[in-house]
Amino acid sequence: AGDAAAGKAKAAVCAACHGANGIAMIPGYPNLAGQNAQYIVSALKAYKSGERKGGQSMVMAPQATMLSDADMENLAAYFSQMK
Amino acid sequence: AGDAAAGKAKAAVCAACHGANGIAMIPGYPNLAGQNAQYIVSALKAYKSGERKGGQSMVMAPQATMLSDADMENLAAYFSQMK
Repeated sequence: AGDAAAGKAKAAVCAACHGANGIAMIPGYPNLAGQNAQYIVSALKAYKSGERKGGQSMVMAPQATMLSDADMENLAAYFSQMK
Repeated sequence: AGDAAAGKAKAAVCAACHGANGIAMIPGYPNLAGQNAQYIVSALKAYKSGERKGGQSMVMAPQATMLSDADMENLAAYFSQMK
């Protein structure tokens, strides 16, 4: 399982679209607060691999490319534990 | 905007994995309760078009293929208004 504190330290760029509290401020962007951690990791990996296209993949693929597997686990831990 | 009551009538198959209350019972599946409606529509369209691969797309693509645009709007209205 990831380290939520380490995830928080990486999450500033996420907050621009998904909200500092994990509730997206932009229509069409998903809320992340309380989301299943394993799902968040799966989504980030699919963006990084290029399997996930469509939607906001033009935004997310470059972001995910900059994340290691450990970063993904940490971000997932951080957002999944938000209320 | 979609019709949440019409969405509920189509949502039985969704509940098998995403939970009758929109909280997934299976690790790795996203919660849908309270999710942004426009995001849900975007995700379903990307599964239907085949743009979204990876993750559980082998499960979701056939499901999304059976949904009209109106069905997607209705399902999104239903899940987004759940607490």
